[in-house]
Amino acid sequence: MHVRIAFAGFGNVARAFARILNEHQSRLAEDYGLRCKTVGIATARHGCVTSADGIDLLQAVDRVERGNQLIEVPGSLHAEDPPAMINDCSAQVLFETTPLNLNAGEPATTYIRSALARGMHVVTANKGPIAFAYRQLKALADGNRLSFRFEGSVMDGAPVFNLVERCLPGVRVLGFSGVLNSTTNIILTGMESGRSFEESLVQAQRLGIAEANADYDIDGWDATVKAVALANVLMGADLRPPDVARTGIRGVTIEDLRSAADTGATIRLVARGRLGSGGPQLIVEPERLSLGSTLGAVRGTSNALVLETDLMGEIAICENEPGVRQTAYALMSDLLTIYNDGPELCV
Amino acid sequence: MHVRIAFAGFGNVARAFARILNEHQSRLAEDYGLRCKTVGIATARHGCVTSADGIDLLQAVDRVERGNQLIEVPGSLHAEDPPAMINDCSAQVLFETTPLNLNAGEPATTYIRSALARGMHVVTANKGPIAFAYRQLKALADGNRLSFRFEGSVMDGAPVFNLVERCLPGVRVLGFSGVLNSTTNIILTGMESGRSFEESLVQAQRLGIAEANADYDIDGWDATVKAVALANVLMGADLRPPDVARTGIRGVTIEDLRSAADTGATIRLVARGRLGSGGPQLIVEPERLSLGSTLGAVRGTSNALVLETDLMGEIAICENEPGVRQTAYALMSDLLTIYNDGPELCV
Repeated sequence: MHVRIAFAGFGNVARAFARILNEHQSRLAEDYGLRCKTVGIATARHGCVTSADGIDLLQAVDRVERGNQLIEVPGSLHAEDPPAMINDCSAQVLFETTPLNLNAGEPATTYIRSALARGMHVVTANKGPIAFAYRQLKALADGNRLSFRFEGSVMDGAPVFNLVERCLPGVRVLGFSGVLNSTTNIILTGMESGRSFEESLVQAQRLGIAEANADYDIDGWDATVKAVALANVLMGADLRPPDVARTGIRGVTIEDLRSAADTGATIRLVARGRLGSGGPQLIVEPERLSLGSTLGAVRGTSNALVLETDLMGEIAICENEPGVRQTAYALMSDLLTIYNDGPELCV
Repeated sequence: MHVRIAFAGFGNVARAFARILNEHQSRLAEDYGLRCKTVGIATARHGCVTSADGIDLLQAVDRVERGNQLIEVPGSLHAEDPPAMINDCSAQVLFETTPLNLNAGEPATTYIRSALARGMHVVTANKGPIAFAYRQLKALADGNRLSFRFEGSVMDGAPVFNLVERCLPGVRVLGFSGVLNSTTNIILTGMESGRSFEESLVQAQRLGIAEANADYDIDGWDATVKAVALANVLMGADLRPPDVARTGIRGVTIEDLRSAADTGATIRLVARGRLGSGGPQLIVEPERLSLGSTLGAVRGTSNALVLETDLMGEIAICENEPGVRQTAYALMSDLLTIYNDGPELCV
């Protein structure tokens, strides 16, 4: 028996996940009894297809990377658009990895809602739906006895949500502080070694970390959306990104970084959440951090999150120099968690 | 209905756990439906007792802390020694927190084996049995369909074993490096600020971190036993502490630390494990670490562990300035994990 999976969005992350599934198929079958069959893929530029018999996933990856259309993959049937694909395919798990729309978490939220309404478990690596619609989507999933998982939406595959849910039972999260955005880290690390803001930005773009339009990172939106996702899930908040006091890194100068370095410190864009009297409050801004602190030690593309808890004090999780494979692993981690929690999936 | 629990060892950690259970009893009842009844306690100096009706846990804590005997607690029956207590009580979960014997993990291993043989789940905060007898104890627990959990044995309540088991499905641990011993951290941190080895050791003893006989920490045995526990559980090893190449911190001088500081580095006692051609290999020794690295940023009583994995690259977990309450939380975390995995416990 196979678990029937489908993809809404088939970009770098989804394709890296497809490769991991392929590379590790014998391990997954032997260790977990897990076999997957791809019954739908929706893309923005390479068409949308379904197949009851299963689409050859590696062939689909190959077609897309050569710039071809998915419909050329043998056995695939045309679907009009992503909603039609979700509607037509009979997937048990949908992997949602469409690009983030900053304003409302769409169209990802609509796709996820539609999949949950049709009885599919959903895995997303998209922080938008968590920041904009977590409570509604979670209620819909719970009501339909389905899993809705999103470990990849913050800090790639490093366990953040699962850490609290599965490893800190009985604990309440009172606050957090995180260095969560790689582009601003690379820029600030570059400026520390004397490069200009612009040169450092170009370096981040060359590394493929920063988007062509990096304003989203530089102005703190990416860190803000992640902070809201963390607060909504871990602290029971129901915030939206515009609710957050947000300052980006445009005001940080090489002189600021030098003067910080003179005192054994550095500057990083920090996202903080804390339980105030009126509920969780968030702030995203550049902070001066001691080099010998967990957050101050974060360099380059690495990320770190410190959790303040009632029973377990302060603990931190860090991921060192992650790449697209780590985000892709988040999808696999979520799939295995769903499968381990309910192996009846494949019936 | 109540979960019947018993204690083998009733020192600082067990008593802090007893206080947490008491403080949070309404939260545990409301959020988890979990109520506990203490049916046995075994100590070295305050006697051993059982009670079918339940021992008042706070009264037991109070008697022990005043230097009195447990038999004075109303309703308690005398048991000859810890094995007799385990034999006589009808606990469903045994909390084993007896002092560590470095040479063989005894008597903890015998107590755990006896409890598992009698159908009890076992929670321990004791690294000895994990370093000396993990494979046998785990097989015994599995064979009897019981849980054997030990999150508190390394890095207190910070999830280390649970992190891999519950948050990194499908991942293989290829290696690890950790700063795992608080006494040597405090000594080295003290020497960095110019205090002598002896002064720094006295400070660690005043803080209640180091034992009166701190050789066990200083010569690297504590870090070694923890490294073996990590390798045996996370990497499938079957090593014993004497198998490890071990160097303590006696050779580290203030000059070494100053010369490290001149290059933006520090020295810490690091435990490393790596998959070699002949299986996992361990080494414990002082290492020079960049201040801006995850392990180099560890100060005072804090601990950190970096895991190298196949699918998730490098991730780290850090605990900041833990105290006895964090180790006590490990016992509660293990109890809740056992209970959540099988609520039929309380039938």
